[in-house]
Amino acid sequence: MTTVGFIGLGIMGGPMARNLLKAGFGVTGYNRSSGPVEALAAQGGRPASSVAEAVRGATVVITMLPDSPDVEAVALGEAGIFANAAPGTLFIDMSTIRPDVAAHLAEHGAGSGLRVLDAPVSGGEQGAIDATLSIMVGGSADDFDAARAVLDAVGKTIVHVGPAGAGQTVKAANQLIVAGTIELVAEAIVFLRAHGVDTRAAVKVLAGGLAGNAILDRKAASMLAGKFEPGFRIDLHHKDLGIVTAAAREAGVAIPLGAAVAQLMGAMHAQGHGSLDHSALLLLVEQLSGVHQGDTA
Amino acid sequence: MTTVGFIGLGIMGGPMARNLLKAGFGVTGYNRSSGPVEALAAQGGRPASSVAEAVRGATVVITMLPDSPDVEAVALGEAGIFANAAPGTLFIDMSTIRPDVAAHLAEHGAGSGLRVLDAPVSGGEQGAIDATLSIMVGGSADDFDAARAVLDAVGKTIVHVGPAGAGQTVKAANQLIVAGTIELVAEAIVFLRAHGVDTRAAVKVLAGGLAGNAILDRKAASMLAGKFEPGFRIDLHHKDLGIVTAAAREAGVAIPLGAAVAQLMGAMHAQGHGSLDHSALLLLVEQLSGVHQGDTA
Amino acid sequence: MTTVGFIGLGIMGGPMARNLLKAGFGVTGYNRSSGPVEALAAQGGRPASSVAEAVRGATVVITMLPDSPDVEAVALGEAGIFANAAPGTLFIDMSTIRPDVAAHLAEHGAGSGLRVLDAPVSGGEQGAIDATLSIMVGGSADDFDAARAVLDAVGKTIVHVGPAGAGQTVKAANQLIVAGTIELVAEAIVFLRAHGVDTRAAVKVLAGGLAGNAILDRKAASMLAGKFEPGFRIDLHHKDLGIVTAAAREAGVAIPLGAAVAQLMGAMHAQGHGSLDHSALLLLVEQLSGVHQGDTA
Amino acid sequence: MTTVGFIGLGIMGGPMARNLLKAGFGVTGYNRSSGPVEALAAQGGRPASSVAEAVRGATVVITMLPDSPDVEAVALGEAGIFANAAPGTLFIDMSTIRPDVAAHLAEHGAGSGLRVLDAPVSGGEQGAIDATLSIMVGGSADDFDAARAVLDAVGKTIVHVGPAGAGQTVKAANQLIVAGTIELVAEAIVFLRAHGVDTRAAVKVLAGGLAGNAILDRKAASMLAGKFEPGFRIDLHHKDLGIVTAAAREAGVAIPLGAAVAQLMGAMHAQGHGSLDHSALLLLVEQLSGVHQGDTA
Repeated sequence: MTTVGFIGLGIMGGPMARNLLKAGFGVTGYNRSSGPVEALAAQGGRPASSVAEAVRGATVVITMLPDSPDVEAVALGEAGIFANAAPGTLFIDMSTIRPDVAAHLAEHGAGSGLRVLDAPVSGGEQGAIDATLSIMVGGSADDFDAARAVLDAVGKTIVHVGPAGAGQTVKAANQLIVAGTIELVAEAIVFLRAHGVDTRAAVKVLAGGLAGNAILDRKAASMLAGKFEPGFRIDLHHKDLGIVTAAAREAGVAIPLGAAVAQLMGAMHAQGHGSLDHSALLLLVEQLSGVHQGDTA
Repeated sequence: MTTVGFIGLGIMGGPMARNLLKAGFGVTGYNRSSGPVEALAAQGGRPASSVAEAVRGATVVITMLPDSPDVEAVALGEAGIFANAAPGTLFIDMSTIRPDVAAHLAEHGAGSGLRVLDAPVSGGEQGAIDATLSIMVGGSADDFDAARAVLDAVGKTIVHVGPAGAGQTVKAANQLIVAGTIELVAEAIVFLRAHGVDTRAAVKVLAGGLAGNAILDRKAASMLAGKFEPGFRIDLHHKDLGIVTAAAREAGVAIPLGAAVAQLMGAMHAQGHGSLDHSALLLLVEQLSGVHQGDTA
Repeated sequence: MTTVGFIGLGIMGGPMARNLLKAGFGVTGYNRSSGPVEALAAQGGRPASSVAEAVRGATVVITMLPDSPDVEAVALGEAGIFANAAPGTLFIDMSTIRPDVAAHLAEHGAGSGLRVLDAPVSGGEQGAIDATLSIMVGGSADDFDAARAVLDAVGKTIVHVGPAGAGQTVKAANQLIVAGTIELVAEAIVFLRAHGVDTRAAVKVLAGGLAGNAILDRKAASMLAGKFEPGFRIDLHHKDLGIVTAAAREAGVAIPLGAAVAQLMGAMHAQGHGSLDHSALLLLVEQLSGVHQGDTA
Repeated sequence: MTTVGFIGLGIMGGPMARNLLKAGFGVTGYNRSSGPVEALAAQGGRPASSVAEAVRGATVVITMLPDSPDVEAVALGEAGIFANAAPGTLFIDMSTIRPDVAAHLAEHGAGSGLRVLDAPVSGGEQGAIDATLSIMVGGSADDFDAARAVLDAVGKTIVHVGPAGAGQTVKAANQLIVAGTIELVAEAIVFLRAHGVDTRAAVKVLAGGLAGNAILDRKAASMLAGKFEPGFRIDLHHKDLGIVTAAAREAGVAIPLGAAVAQLMGAMHAQGHGSLDHSALLLLVEQLSGVHQGDTA
């Protein structure tokens, strides 16, 4: 039986580890706070009280952590993964971090005899619970094949997109398109309302044509209702757009719309709306246009 | 049998008129050039040699013309629709024109005893041929009900979105979202290529998540292949974004992304690429970024 | 003695007409409301009770009116300038209007035997009072020479910039640069405050280098003090940016920064701040950034 | 006699060190390549073959280096300034670097008994030669007073703008305004040309009004002539706009125009025009608009 060391049992990592258990993998789980570790143990997992303990005996190690520095600390720290994993271990980082950090970890891993994949996900908490995540994987083809069984247990669309770091690059592109699409839908909604259009009917017909997108399908109804519980927090999307703009700058790629929406997401963050769902960009378009939620239904 | 006077038998209007014939309507067709009129006659329609002749005896009149001034001329001209249609005639303009012109025509119609709907479509030539157009209809609920049978013969998703002009407003919003989404996908593609990612694999995984949209589904493959045959011409989308920005300005709605992409579409137009498909915005992102189509597959 | 028919004796036109009187010209003045006409008469002008009366006997006619439709009505109307002016009359429109309207008036004038110049000004009420206006003149060189003496009486920098409409085009460019510069200074001020910088000292050093501009010189102090009495109203600058974006669109010129600042000025207008000075763009940057005037001095 | 240790004798640092000598200061100079050190010695300076040697015996140390990492290495390195300077030494960094790095150096200095100022300059090579630089100084008021005599020898407008890092923050704001103003002038020039306006006459009248700025005064003539020898290189301005956007992001300040022009400067950099003067943004507006330098004079 393959044993997976799983580090980071939060909103995403918790259900992912459970799905690994359900699929028949052994899972040794570690989390900074102990509650999630105990929850995992209650479901048949093995509790670990340190990163080192989670890593020892595992042939696959997964991390699911908030940001680049967290992953770097857990991977490269003195009591971390690279210091404790057996040669040949497959280390899959499923966090959303900077592509250059992902590439750096892979390089480091090669020197330490570890096999490293970056495999960020999209699909949110519900996707983690339902094991329907989309997973964009960077690394070697051999390592991707080796990881396949594990990834199949937590996701549905699993695609090898290129060498080390490529998974994070695709995730960055994902966040660029998502933010921009939310803003376009927000501009359209305020535009439609200002002209006295029945927005619910309009969303229906827009969703059916070339303007159709996942935001219209999944978010427009709550946007029209003025509901902005996350979902995916503005704080996190703001962090991700920082990754996008920096990576585009470094690569010499012009992203005029990406840069513009990064300013708007940043404005929401600066105004203290970081804990709202990212679809709350609608509130900013309303603010700019001098209208208020619900002025016109 | 309901007789429909159909004015404008071009790439869109021609197949739409044929679908009306197939559905059992009588169709009297007029077009500025005579070829399409003869083609319609060969399929069982009645040829008309003037707008007046197309309108006389019809209980429904449809226009499918390029731009606002064309519709105004045909509707309001001395030998036009309003001067020749019987009281109670249902006039459905299915062109894409300015919302304020549509509203003005409706107002004019009310004074002349005509019933007026604006009913622009999306779905392109193929949608016109297959009778699967999405139709966004502005006008009164009664007139919408009266038009239902005719619209069912040419479209699939048919939605009443509000009062006179509302159909055009929703079409404008549609064009805003479509242009913006193309640009976001273009920025993502150049970004992904610059980082050495397998773009075909990336598009596949992007399309499956919250970044999913109709451009990724229908246009990304040809964009990746560098094929930009229209489809929908940059010239026309540039015209439509002029309608969007003017209507947003008039309504006091801020559309920062809409205004930015209007500049980019305008740049493609200014550089002489007006006859390419609108997805050729990719070429502009490549130009800005100093890369050339196919530099990296 | 040259007699000037002066139409539009408002905040700008009033003092300009007075300066013509001081310079020894005869001035027949007309205004829609009679107060300014009486004021001019008290200073030695001749009152007129209609456009026709102001025009008759004049060898030069000047208009100083709010917007394109006003000038068109006064020039082309039945009882207007073209209908009443003697052949050879020099008609100088000093209003800020659309370049294409200015060109159209010149064309019309040529057909009517009138000589037409567009000569919009910059410099504000104070410049009008002090006769120090900058005047950008479009039309033929001969007509410019003929107008020189009259323009010298109301302005200081008087430049012939091209054929009919060129004056309005330069004025549009002026408004583009002014709006953009205000926004740049506003962004800089909020940026500096957020970092705890002494903004008054910073403005001083910025004004002395390559970042130096007339906004830093004339507006920054009132911006830092949160004083936004016009000066030049947001409403009018919003109107002017509509002219700029339309003229750029028509000419196929990309103005990415111009289009962006037009959105921001439009947002201020939409939020009901139209009667503030255009330097109140600072309030919008503060709003976006979640800070409030005076949070940090 | 005060002895100044001067590190970085390049295009800017070389003439600045010479001006210190002229003003009667002793100068010990160090540069990575030895040519500039010999040149300084020929003018009466003392050559140093290491940072440590330049620092020893100096009561004031000045650095004039390309970027943040250079300054960090020279200041914090094993054989660097902090390791070799006597307690109480005044360390003035006149490079353009990140404000947070400047603040960090000051903090570090406080711990090491050094007094640290950040004092970036504007005015270019000519300003360095003529000792007319504008200098924006961050740090304590006492240290500013202590540095005054030295700064007076190399600059003209010397302003204390706030605590440690504030000088760099003001320099960042300077670079934001300069880049944006160049782009506005570029948009105006292409706009004017497209309408057939005499651009030289237009620049003259624009420069005299509220649109007036230092770019119109110092750069417009070379822009109109299509001359883009630096001056200040696009590469460096691109680097500086990276500092601006990062610092604005960190502070939660919205800079919509700043972010837009950073994309445009980045596009010029990506297209390989990094060694041109920053006023070559004009070429980008021409590219976008499909016109070519000189198409219309």
